[in-house]
This record gives sequence, C-alpha cells and structure tokens, in this order.
Amino acid sequence: MSEFPEDSIGLVTPQTLHFDTPLTLASGRILPHYDLVIETYGQLNADASNAVLICHALSGHHHAAGYHSVDERKPGWWDSAIGPGKVIDTERFFVVALNNLGGCHGSTGPNTPNPETGKPYGPDFPIVTVLDWVHSQAHLADRLGITQWAAVVGGSLGGMQAMQWAISYPERLRHCVVIAAAPKLSTQNIAFNEVARQAITKDPQFYNGHYYEQGVVPKTGLMLARMVGHITYLSEDGMRDKFGRELRSGKLSFDFNPQFEIESYLQYQGERFSSAFDANTYLLMTKALDYFDPAAEYDNNLAAALSDVRCDFFIASFTTDWRFSPERSREIVDALIEAKKHVTYTEIQAAHGHDAFLIPIPRYMEVFGAYMNRIAAEQENQYAR
Amino acid sequence: MSEFPEDSIGLVTPQTLHFDTPLTLASGRILPHYDLVIETYGQLNADASNAVLICHALSGHHHAAGYHSVDERKPGWWDSAIGPGKVIDTERFFVVALNNLGGCHGSTGPNTPNPETGKPYGPDFPIVTVLDWVHSQAHLADRLGITQWAAVVGGSLGGMQAMQWAISYPERLRHCVVIAAAPKLSTQNIAFNEVARQAITKDPQFYNGHYYEQGVVPKTGLMLARMVGHITYLSEDGMRDKFGRELRSGKLSFDFNPQFEIESYLQYQGERFSSAFDANTYLLMTKALDYFDPAAEYDNNLAAALSDVRCDFFIASFTTDWRFSPERSREIVDALIEAKKHVTYTEIQAAHGHDAFLIPIPRYMEVFGAYMNRIAAEQENQYAR
Repeated sequence: MSEFPEDSIGLVTPQTLHFDTPLTLASGRILPHYDLVIETYGQLNADASNAVLICHALSGHHHAAGYHSVDERKPGWWDSAIGPGKVIDTERFFVVALNNLGGCHGSTGPNTPNPETGKPYGPDFPIVTVLDWVHSQAHLADRLGITQWAAVVGGSLGGMQAMQWAISYPERLRHCVVIAAAPKLSTQNIAFNEVARQAITKDPQFYNGHYYEQGVVPKTGLMLARMVGHITYLSEDGMRDKFGRELRSGKLSFDFNPQFEIESYLQYQGERFSSAFDANTYLLMTKALDYFDPAAEYDNNLAAALSDVRCDFFIASFTTDWRFSPERSREIVDALIEAKKHVTYTEIQAAHGHDAFLIPIPRYMEVFGAYMNRIAAEQENQYAR
Repeated sequence: MSEFPEDSIGLVTPQTLHFDTPLTLASGRILPHYDLVIETYGQLNADASNAVLICHALSGHHHAAGYHSVDERKPGWWDSAIGPGKVIDTERFFVVALNNLGGCHGSTGPNTPNPETGKPYGPDFPIVTVLDWVHSQAHLADRLGITQWAAVVGGSLGGMQAMQWAISYPERLRHCVVIAAAPKLSTQNIAFNEVARQAITKDPQFYNGHYYEQGVVPKTGLMLARMVGHITYLSEDGMRDKFGRELRSGKLSFDFNPQFEIESYLQYQGERFSSAFDANTYLLMTKALDYFDPAAEYDNNLAAALSDVRCDFFIASFTTDWRFSPERSREIVDALIEAKKHVTYTEIQAAHGHDAFLIPIPRYMEVFGAYMNRIAAEQENQYAR
C-alpha cells in the first residue's frame, strides 16, 4: 500500500547530472561546465522512443510530479497531468523534467558557485535564452540516450521552449505541445516584466545581485514582482468570482491595512514567493521571456521560422488568458498552417486566466489527453509492427 | 497680442480658499478647517447659472487649463478641452477646477501642516472618499455663490465625483458628465492599486509616511506605482503601435540595462512622477478609488442608488480602455435607463486606452462638444426668455 494517491507516480528522487562540454550561449558567453537537476517518471522503452520532455515556466523546476517524501504536502507542479493513467501517462511514457540553467532549484544558476570565484555566480551568471535552454536540453537528451523525443511539452515559457525545439532540432522530436504560450512577448508583457525587474533591482537588499554574501534577500522586490505577475496570471473575471470586493472584516477600515480579500491574498502570495525563489533567477527568467522571438531572424515571418519543422503540433489556449491570449496562440497556428505543417488547436473555455494551463479543467484534460494518447498509440503501433 | 496660443485661456492664477466650517468625513474623522486651491476660467454670469465644475483624476489638480507663466512649457492638464471656443467653452461657461482634499498641490493634504502639530500631516491625514470630496466641493460652490452647477464634469476618478454629485446633491447640478469611469473598481483594479501601495509603503524611504521630516521621498516606490499605473492607462494595442519590440540600440544587449524602448519609456515616466508627486497623496487617491461604490448601500443595486438623481447624464467610454472598459460605463448607462433617467452615451474608437479621456480625439471632442453646446444653449435660452 502506498501513502500516496493511487494515480500518483508516488515517491520520486531528483538526480543531478554534470555536463563537462562547454556550452556557448546566445550572448557569446561560455559555460565551461554545468549541472542540470532532473526527475524522471516511468520507464524508457528499449528503443528509447517513448520519452517526453517537460519544459517549465517562469517559476517552475524539475519537480513536476509525485512526492519527494511522505511528508510533502503538495506533489510536483504538474502532478494533475503527469502520472499513471493521467494525460501524460507514466505507464506509457518516460517523462523527463528538469530545472533549467539559471534556475534556483539545483541546476547551475545564480545561486550556485561560480567555479572562477567559489562564490555564488549572482549577477555574473550569464543571461540565458530559450535557445540556450534547448541546447542544454539536447545535451541532456544525449546523456539519457534519447535521440528523438516522442514529445516536447510545455506551458507558457515552457511552450516557447517546445517551439524552439521544433525549430532548432527538427529531427529530434515527433510532437510539439505548446500550451498557453505566444510566439513572442507583446510590448505590454515586456512592460510588466520591466516593473518586476525594477522592483527587484531597486530593492536596497538586492546589493546589485550580491545579496547572498550579505545574508539577505530582496524580499520586497520579489514580493512586488510576484504580486504584479499574479495579477497577470489570473483573469479579471476569475478574480471577481473568487474575491469580488469582499472585505475581510465586513466593513471598510479607513486605514491602509489589507481589507479587501484580494489585498491579503496577493500579499500572502507575494510574501510566500519571496522566501522561496531566487531574485537573480527571476530576473533571468523575465529576460528569457523578453528575448524569445524566433521570427526575428526571419524578417518577422513566423511561418518562415517554422518552415523546417518536422513534428506535429498541439497548441492550446484558454479563453480568459490575457497574458498570452488565444489570439497569440492562433498566430502560431496560422503560421504553421501557412508553412503547411500539421497542427491541432484547441481553445479551452476557462475562467482561470493564464494559470488555467496548470489546472485540470475537464475539457482541457480530455483534448490534451486524446492527443497524448494518439502519440502513445502511434509509437506503440509503430514499434509493435 | 498674447504669448499664448489663440485658443488658450492664457495666463491663469490659482487662488487658495480657506474653509473654517469643520468637515466630517466618511471615516468619522473631522477636518476642523481646510484650504482648497482652485482655478477659475471665464466669467460667472449674473444668475450664476453657467458654472461648470471640473473634478480631477488620481494625479490631477486645479491647474486644468491655461498657463501659470509665459515660461510654462505645458498648459493645464485638460487644456485641450477647456478654453475659448473649446469643448468646455470659457466664453460661455464659468469653469472651476480644484485640487481635492488630500492632494499635494496646495489643498490641505498630507504635505500641508497639521494644525495640531505644526508638522506635515503625513500618514495622519485622514482617508478621504469621493463623497468627502463632493461635500467639500459643495462648500466651495456655496463660497462661489453657485447654487446649481450647469454641469459637473470628470474623467476616471473625476467621473466618480461627478456621479456622486448627482446622487448626493441632486438639485445642485443640471448635467453630469462621466468620462472613462466605472460605478466601482473591479477586483483587478483594486489588486493593481494594492501593488502600488505596497511598493510605496515598503520603500525604506517611506518611513511610515513621515519621510518629510527625513528630507527624503520614497522615489522607488512611487516610480514602481507609476510604472504599473501607466501600463494600465495605455492599451495593449497602443503600446504595441507606439513601442512594439523596438530596441534602443538595434540589438539585444544581454544585460539588465533598459534595451526595449518600452522599458526606458516606463522608467522615465516613473522617475519623473516620483519627483513630482507626493507618496501619501498617491496612497489616499488609490483608497478613494477602492472605496467608491455608491450602490453598496443600496444592496448593490446601482439603479436604486441613482433613483433620486435629477440631472441629465453624458457618459463616454473608449474602446481600448481596459482600466475602466466600455462595459463598466454601460453598467452606469443601464442603471440610469432602469431608473428612467436621461442619459446620452458614446463609445469612442480610440487606441489610447484609459488615457484617451485626456486626448483631443476628433470624434470624442465632437460628441462631447455637442453635449456641452446643448448645455450652454439651454441655459442661454432659458435665461434669455
């Protein structure tokens, strides 16, 4: 008998993989060596054809499913979609999740030692791009003996990585799953990111990124960044339905204490995040978002950027997502159609805004599940012949 | 010959009016006496029937039109709409603009002396509401000998004051002009205000609101508040059209300096504002916004709240305004119709988002001008008979 829910992958253990081959980044800088922390769920089959890569979003990491201990209160961040019999079925797929370079959950990043100094990289960690991540993930695939992913899957910033895989390594994936993403940030998206960066870098506890040595963290900056972010992850309607104008004490207090429920909710979210996430990583993640624009080197022609992709695409968006609205997903779909590629698109009715991609909304799970089932069946049939 | 543009009201001089009658606020606190700084444009006619009150928005003040000196680079904040021959025609109307209580441009507020201590009120200045402002404006009307305004006019938070006038003093205005406003803030609106408040109050230079004594201002907090605010004032499309993803130097810099045009624009706006506006006033203004909800005491029935109004209404909204979207204006229109009141409504095509209400968009100026012309003509005809 397991202590975990029946449909959970159960106890999982992260592994740290060390890479000694230098990685040249888009900035021109070189990481001489680096670690990637990963988790895997399920079994790689004999011909290594059933592997699925999960790419994480801004604040994500390698712990996508299952539990690290019996005491862990909550499972991995996408446990609702990954597990035995779930949408990404660990009885059929070998699932790989990693913490990206520049992250703050064990992979080489600002809070890990700079080999040149022995101290944390801090602000000296190079700016990394979606393309850099995909290159590092390709080295990870090599290490795991995976020549071709059955699918590369991601939501939000993770979806951008999936797209980049299809563009940069067309022969190394059969399916690309891009959920709640966009082909590039809008001006408004960049503007919100810049507010977050200013909040962090102008916090006196930031010390130009060298706060580790000071034994402090720029909590206020991170809290503000997360509060702004959180507003953009939720939909206006979702916030109204969940919090409305409800007052914590039932009446106006005529002071500056939080009195509307939404105020204390945001403060709580911001404060919790500020103790759990690294500020330098947050800055890097926002830059990776800002910089992603695969069409840029194709004269802003997204169809041209996608002209060499070989995989099939599954694109999903959510009606109330205003961070990356359905319109942004349809830009990808339209470009794929123009480039004569195979694409399945679904627009899910959901009140949850951008956060919907993390929520097991029945219709979403059904359509996404049907697509993943098709991938598993294809691969099982092909190799059964 | 004037040094000012022909259609400008020209040189204007603010006046400070002192009020000795104690004002009881919605919070229960009492202001024993207070100053209001005002400007007036045009001439009050013999029967004081041509007066128009201009109510300002979050960061506004009494200087709505004309110039304070020949050296002033820019005229008052609504000079595009107020002046000889303009929409609010100073050859026909006597226009009154004031700085509201709690403001930072001369009226009694956090940066003016608390009579009890001789030091600036700072955080001890009471929270003021839209209703409090309207009461103070009614005392101002008494002082100026204006029994009934031809119109009370405002955009955004100013529009909320105009609505409150119609509800609280139904016999004291003939027309109510409510532009780019809402009957109450949405949860998302409150959430953005709370980010601004946290940014200001968590700035180490805020000193719990007593920064005046320290000779500093919470510049970072105010800058962040303004940056967030600014994003919500502009439309996503407007930002895209104006800034796109243009890079200042033409290429990515792979560092954290501002490189997209939108980044430097927002920083500039934020920094300029942080040297020009008082942080305690900003906090008060956001609270006045959050608290405005005239339907609350009518069981959330806006039509009931408006059942006793006697004036005619002109309501205007702008298509890309997502701070107070057209839908929010239509809630007011629908409630007025349900309450069987006279209402004219226009929804203006504009790319400028919420800021559109300050911009002389031809269609907007035409429709608004036609309404104001009707008011002037009515009043001139009535008194010509």
